[in-house]
Amino acid sequence: MAKHIKTAITPTRAENYPEWYQQVVRASDMAENSPVKGCMVIKPWGYAVWENIMRGLDDMFRETGVRNAYFPLFIPLSFLEKEAEHVEGFAKECAVVTHHRLEQGADGGLAPAGPLTEPLIVRPTSETIIGASFSRWVSSYRDLPILINQWANVVRWEMRTRIFLRTTEFLWQEGHTAHATKEEALERTHMMLDIYTKFVEEYLAMPVIKGKKTASERFPGAIDTFCIEAMMQDRKALQSGTSHFLGQNFSRASDIRFQSAREKEEYAWTTSWGTSTRLIGGLVMTHSDDNGLVLPPKIASSHVVLLPIVKKKDDLPMVMEYTESLADELKEKCYHQRKIAVEIDNRDIGGARGWEWIKKGIPLRVEIGPRDIANNSVYVGRRDKESKDKKSYNRDTFIGEITNILDDIQKTLFERALMFRKEHSVIIDDNKTFYDFFTPDNPEKPEIHGGFVSSKWCGSEKCEAKIKENLSVTIRCVPLIDMAVGGKCVCCGRPAVTYAIFAKAY
Amino acid sequence: MAKHIKTAITPTRAENYPEWYQQVVRASDMAENSPVKGCMVIKPWGYAVWENIMRGLDDMFRETGVRNAYFPLFIPLSFLEKEAEHVEGFAKECAVVTHHRLEQGADGGLAPAGPLTEPLIVRPTSETIIGASFSRWVSSYRDLPILINQWANVVRWEMRTRIFLRTTEFLWQEGHTAHATKEEALERTHMMLDIYTKFVEEYLAMPVIKGKKTASERFPGAIDTFCIEAMMQDRKALQSGTSHFLGQNFSRASDIRFQSAREKEEYAWTTSWGTSTRLIGGLVMTHSDDNGLVLPPKIASSHVVLLPIVKKKDDLPMVMEYTESLADELKEKCYHQRKIAVEIDNRDIGGARGWEWIKKGIPLRVEIGPRDIANNSVYVGRRDKESKDKKSYNRDTFIGEITNILDDIQKTLFERALMFRKEHSVIIDDNKTFYDFFTPDNPEKPEIHGGFVSSKWCGSEKCEAKIKENLSVTIRCVPLIDMAVGGKCVCCGRPAVTYAIFAKAY
Repeated sequence: MAKHIKTAITPTRAENYPEWYQQVVRASDMAENSPVKGCMVIKPWGYAVWENIMRGLDDMFRETGVRNAYFPLFIPLSFLEKEAEHVEGFAKECAVVTHHRLEQGADGGLAPAGPLTEPLIVRPTSETIIGASFSRWVSSYRDLPILINQWANVVRWEMRTRIFLRTTEFLWQEGHTAHATKEEALERTHMMLDIYTKFVEEYLAMPVIKGKKTASERFPGAIDTFCIEAMMQDRKALQSGTSHFLGQNFSRASDIRFQSAREKEEYAWTTSWGTSTRLIGGLVMTHSDDNGLVLPPKIASSHVVLLPIVKKKDDLPMVMEYTESLADELKEKCYHQRKIAVEIDNRDIGGARGWEWIKKGIPLRVEIGPRDIANNSVYVGRRDKESKDKKSYNRDTFIGEITNILDDIQKTLFERALMFRKEHSVIIDDNKTFYDFFTPDNPEKPEIHGGFVSSKWCGSEKCEAKIKENLSVTIRCVPLIDMAVGGKCVCCGRPAVTYAIFAKAY
Repeated sequence: MAKHIKTAITPTRAENYPEWYQQVVRASDMAENSPVKGCMVIKPWGYAVWENIMRGLDDMFRETGVRNAYFPLFIPLSFLEKEAEHVEGFAKECAVVTHHRLEQGADGGLAPAGPLTEPLIVRPTSETIIGASFSRWVSSYRDLPILINQWANVVRWEMRTRIFLRTTEFLWQEGHTAHATKEEALERTHMMLDIYTKFVEEYLAMPVIKGKKTASERFPGAIDTFCIEAMMQDRKALQSGTSHFLGQNFSRASDIRFQSAREKEEYAWTTSWGTSTRLIGGLVMTHSDDNGLVLPPKIASSHVVLLPIVKKKDDLPMVMEYTESLADELKEKCYHQRKIAVEIDNRDIGGARGWEWIKKGIPLRVEIGPRDIANNSVYVGRRDKESKDKKSYNRDTFIGEITNILDDIQKTLFERALMFRKEHSVIIDDNKTFYDFFTPDNPEKPEIHGGFVSSKWCGSEKCEAKIKENLSVTIRCVPLIDMAVGGKCVCCGRPAVTYAIFAKAY
């Protein structure tokens, strides 16, 4: 019998993965469910991660010429209806504003009043409202390209929600661009997918697979949707960013026309691309362990917590002085374009204190007691190692080395996640093996299943639908890397046209 | 007869102030009205100002221990109703969500479907929804204070809107804090008012008067509302930030209770405080002139535009090389915690180019032609001076001096605005002079009136209401600076209890 190891999070991943996730979020103090159905409250420890994500992506967008702007929260119903597939895709999940004030009703309580002549939709995405602006901004090819990004809240009414991963309201960025040529728009679509890849891999330490969505998983109204897909620790896929090539669909719908260099009137070619607070759910599910959250240093809410240890009251002033001077020196240092963020926790709550910071996922915990001070040293725990595995550093060495240590944690997390994905990714050619792979070993824990499968596919939506119905497995993407293909579709046995990545997904 | 001077903005301030404002905003390319009634589109040049405002305020908030978080966009009607004055204050301007999807209606078009059992209000402000979180977060005095800020969009349905100044949707920050004692909450209320004062004066270069609102102008549900008031160039007041002492009103409504150090159960004392995109309207109206926008350097979207002047095609490579190397050197420099932002405009559109940048309010325009290059010099125009008043600088001197020049512009703008306010502020003791002061000289231009008046007031709401009805003049605030008072109320002649600042207002 295995020795029972006490963990900070109950249940563990192996015991109940979905519940483990909820408990990690709760214990980390990042966010909570709100009394408003499906909407979350992002608490300071979680919002700081979002701020770091915003800052990191913003810098990358800006380097490619993108500028931020802001468009209305409300979209007139008639705007949404301009693109047929688009409105069909979002009609079932729209928050609808029908009135603009409240009045005393017959029962004495307040009731909606001032009915609107046209209902307004709370934006689920902004192609149509931004398109209306673009059509005003563009008249000549000289006005193109337009490269805009918006940081905003959006609403998609969800029946089954899960904090960060699927919420009725979420925060995101949505980029929208318009171009004179198809080639340029396609280039931008891929450029932004590459930025997402770089950001998610380098900042969130989440390895991703770049690919193209099948028709059934495309953004409503797009010609092509490209995506990055990451593997969570339950081996499910999480779509972590999408970049859409919209062709001329939305420019026809919104009338974005321009006079070309050859003095011909043409419709612009547009793109849109987005990532959201869902990324925070993704990083929780990628790195956290049975002791709670693990934050990659580059987007951590804070980098290091100093924990003064005072057993005799007389030692307090000396220990605090040493701690505060260490904090001051650390705060002067930069780690990837931001100052090292330092917490000091001098609460007298015993061992619970260290565990709280482990559960919050802070990369480094530094214990400082009279003995460390006598040796001019600090005692350091890394969140990517076992909680007991701590190391003593000379104080100045630690200050000199801290950015290297953080980089090492960042690297370890990425490599660990990459290894995990490799362990749970297979190539399968035959139908029976494919079905076995996705059948849970233990029917009581259906969430533990195979992982990512590369299989050949004939390209038909029927096969895709059949696999989805039988196994709840979808094509996550057709990978963008070239793979020589031949042989037969894993579903129907007819000639294959491509490889595809199959997985269960969030 | 005065010589007619051509201005870049038509009409001028003197000709039609409200229309001048709209035209300055339009010509600056900061924002535009959207097809959604009362909602604006903030374009990149305007959004960059908002980003700088966010960054500046955020740093100041953080230094006082405030942390950012995010709460739901939607507020259940029953939450809003918890505080009676509060719901009454906002009932007439609420966007109400009543349905959560769209369905094909009888006429074939899409119509709202999936009625909600309880309507949701799009937040006009978040005291009640944040209060619900605070009540979960607080149980002991050790959990206090809670110091939270949220950057968000809010909706207050407005019938008469004006871009930036009064829009149905606007962007803002709302701070919410909870404290164990009344004294601490009051101290926080004043601390945030002081931060607003410092920020608006030092960053937006807008001089303000700090004061307390009268009961009739208080935030619905507050015990006391404190504000900062600025004078626009039509001598009207603009409320530019408010800080509310909420007493225990909202903690009773939201049940924010805690166990005190003396083990007594008590209600927390709360505050809230906010500033919004209205500040951008304020800075337009404070500094702009008949040639368009004037941006204070500390929050300018960009600091300097380089305008290469090429008359002979052969000169192009040399001029561009000189321009780009200058840009690179300037971009390395820091101005008040951010890098100098540099634009290069090499469009071949003649004199229109320089005027476009004047209308956009960029602090510095730098012309670079072959002759300047031969002298290793640059030719610099400052937006706070006449458009023709340009000065030649040695290139390296300019690079060395640019931050001082920007500081000088910042200072000039503040002093000019302060002088303007002083010129249009008077103390009036008698009723007739008071009424005369607020009667427009020219009835065809009712927007040009007196300015700020300090008068004695008996403290009665009747007098306040009478003056408002007769003159559309309100008490902007009771100034926080001590002024010895005696004598009679400017309205009724009864004994006065305080001085008050009277003005027309936005």
